[in-house]
Amino acid sequence: MSASEFDLIYRYFASLGAGLAVDLSVGDDCAILSLAPGERLATSVDTMVEGVHFPEELFPEDTGFRAVSVAVSDLAAMGARPIGMTVALTLPEADEFWINAFSQGLAQAVAEYRIPLVGGDTTRGPLTITVQVLGALPADQALLREGARPGDSVFVSGPLGDAAGALAFLNGQWQPAPDAAEYLLQRYNRPRARVELGQQLLGKATSAIDISDGLLADAGHIAAASGVALHIDPAAIPLSTALQSHEDSDTILRWALAGGDDYELCFTLPRDESAPMGCSRIGEVQAGQGVHTGLDSDLPTGFQHFS
Amino acid sequence: MSASEFDLIYRYFASLGAGLAVDLSVGDDCAILSLAPGERLATSVDTMVEGVHFPEELFPEDTGFRAVSVAVSDLAAMGARPIGMTVALTLPEADEFWINAFSQGLAQAVAEYRIPLVGGDTTRGPLTITVQVLGALPADQALLREGARPGDSVFVSGPLGDAAGALAFLNGQWQPAPDAAEYLLQRYNRPRARVELGQQLLGKATSAIDISDGLLADAGHIAAASGVALHIDPAAIPLSTALQSHEDSDTILRWALAGGDDYELCFTLPRDESAPMGCSRIGEVQAGQGVHTGLDSDLPTGFQHFS
Repeated sequence: MSASEFDLIYRYFASLGAGLAVDLSVGDDCAILSLAPGERLATSVDTMVEGVHFPEELFPEDTGFRAVSVAVSDLAAMGARPIGMTVALTLPEADEFWINAFSQGLAQAVAEYRIPLVGGDTTRGPLTITVQVLGALPADQALLREGARPGDSVFVSGPLGDAAGALAFLNGQWQPAPDAAEYLLQRYNRPRARVELGQQLLGKATSAIDISDGLLADAGHIAAASGVALHIDPAAIPLSTALQSHEDSDTILRWALAGGDDYELCFTLPRDESAPMGCSRIGEVQAGQGVHTGLDSDLPTGFQHFS
Repeated sequence: MSASEFDLIYRYFASLGAGLAVDLSVGDDCAILSLAPGERLATSVDTMVEGVHFPEELFPEDTGFRAVSVAVSDLAAMGARPIGMTVALTLPEADEFWINAFSQGLAQAVAEYRIPLVGGDTTRGPLTITVQVLGALPADQALLREGARPGDSVFVSGPLGDAAGALAFLNGQWQPAPDAAEYLLQRYNRPRARVELGQQLLGKATSAIDISDGLLADAGHIAAASGVALHIDPAAIPLSTALQSHEDSDTILRWALAGGDDYELCFTLPRDESAPMGCSRIGEVQAGQGVHTGLDSDLPTGFQHFS
C-alpha cells in the first residue's frame, strides 16, 4: 500500500476504535486494552477469502458486517463479552467505493456488537479478510465444547438451513418467491452473532458451539469433546417459513442438518433448566458417541461454504 | 480445507499452544488467556503476502519464523511481554512438505519469543500469513511513539540496512562475498524482535518504534506523534561489516536510512540516561518537526518491502 492508499483506509476506519476497554487504539505499534479485575481474555481468528467463503457478488457493506459477525460468533459461543478486534485486509486495489462501503459494514458491526476496531493491517493481494476478536470472560466461567452430560437437553438458538437456502438461490439452484429470497439473503449476508445469549448461558449451559459448518458437524464437536452421544430429532429443528417454501422436504432437511453459515448456537442444558427465549429443544445427550438423527440417509457431515 | 487437510495442519501446530498465560489453547471456539493482576493487554496484527512482503524463494521454515518475528516486533516496540498469538494461514494447497517446514519455523519462533500459538484459521487461496500477537503490559507503563522531548537522545538497537542489502542480493543487484551474503540473508530471513530490550526500556525510554519501513519513515512517526524534530547523524548509524563491503557508500547510506525490514528498535532516552548494551546513539531530539539528516539528497522516505 502506498502512503496515500493507507491514508484513505485509515480515514475510514480510524473512527471505529473507541470503547470502554480500549486504553489506546489504532495509531501506535500496538493497541492497549484493559480487562476488569479477575476477567480473562477470550480470542479467536477467522479468515474469509472471496470466492471461497463468500461469493464475489456480495456487497462490500455486507462483506464487512458478515466478516465481523462470523468472528464474533466464536466469542458468543464461549459466552464472552466483546472488547475489541483487529482486521487484516488484503485488497487487490484501493477502490474508494469498495473501501467506503466495506467500512460502513464494519461500522455497523462495531455498533451492533459494541466491539471497537483497535488495530489492523492493509496489504495488496487477492481479497482476504482476517478478523481477530478479543472478549472478556469471568475468571471461573466459559462455555466450552466439553461438559455435555447424559440426560442434558440439546438446543439451538434459531432456525437452521437458511444460509444454505440462500446459497442455493445465489447459485441458481432454487428460485424462491421474492420475499422468501430477501429473508434468506438477509440471513446469509447479515448473520447475527448470538452474543447476548452466550453471556446468558454462562453458568447454565454444560456445553456450547456456534453452527458455522452445519449442525451435524458442529454437534459432533460437542459429542467428541464431551465424550457423549447427541441424539437429535430432525422434526424438532426450527425452520423458517421461507426455507419451508422449498418443495422438497428432503432438501430442506439436508440444509438444516448439514448447511453451515447460520451462526446460531447449539448448546446443552441440564434437563431441569428451562429453554432461553427463542431457543428450541432438538434432542438429548446420551451415553455413547457421535451424533444420531434416526435417519438412514447419507448426509454429508462437512460443509463446503460457498465454493 | 477438507477435514483431512485440517487434520494435517492441526497435527503440526497443536503442540505449540502451551504457555504460562494460556488457560485454554487451540481446539474450542476461542482460546482463553489470563493476565497477571493489574496488567493490560497489548495487541497488533501483521499480514504477509507472498511476492509482496517476502520473495517466493524464501524457505517455508524462514517464512514461518519471520512472520512471527515481524508481528512480535510490535510487542517489543511497546515494551510488552508476549503471552500468545494466533496465525491465520491462507494456502494454495495442503503441501505436506511446505506445512512441515513452515511449522518448524513457527515452532522455533514460539520457543525464541516464548509466545504460544493459541489459535488459528486455515483457508484456501494465495499464500498469505496473518499473525496476531498478544502481550502483557504493566498497568501504568508502555513505550509509545509520543513522548520524545527536546534534549532527548535518539538510539537504534543494532545495525541498519542489512535487510535492504539482502533484498539487493536476492534481486541480483549486488553480489557480496559468500560470508557477507550469508549474514545478510540471515538478517532478512530471521529477524530477531527486540523483546527483551523493549521490556528493559519501560519506564526509561520516552518514545519507541520498531523499524519496519525504514529509519527515516519510522523516526518520522515518533517526530509526528511527539510533536518534535529528530536530528539524526548519518555517520553515527551502526552498519554491519557485511553491508560495508558494498563499494558505494551512498547506496549503503540509502539502505541504512530508507531500507525497511530490519526490525531494530528506534527509541529516545533522556540525555542523562545511558545507552543499553548494544545500542547506538544516532542523534538528538530538538524542537520542531520532521526528521533531519543534514543530507540534501532526495532519499525515499517510504519503503516498498519486497516488490
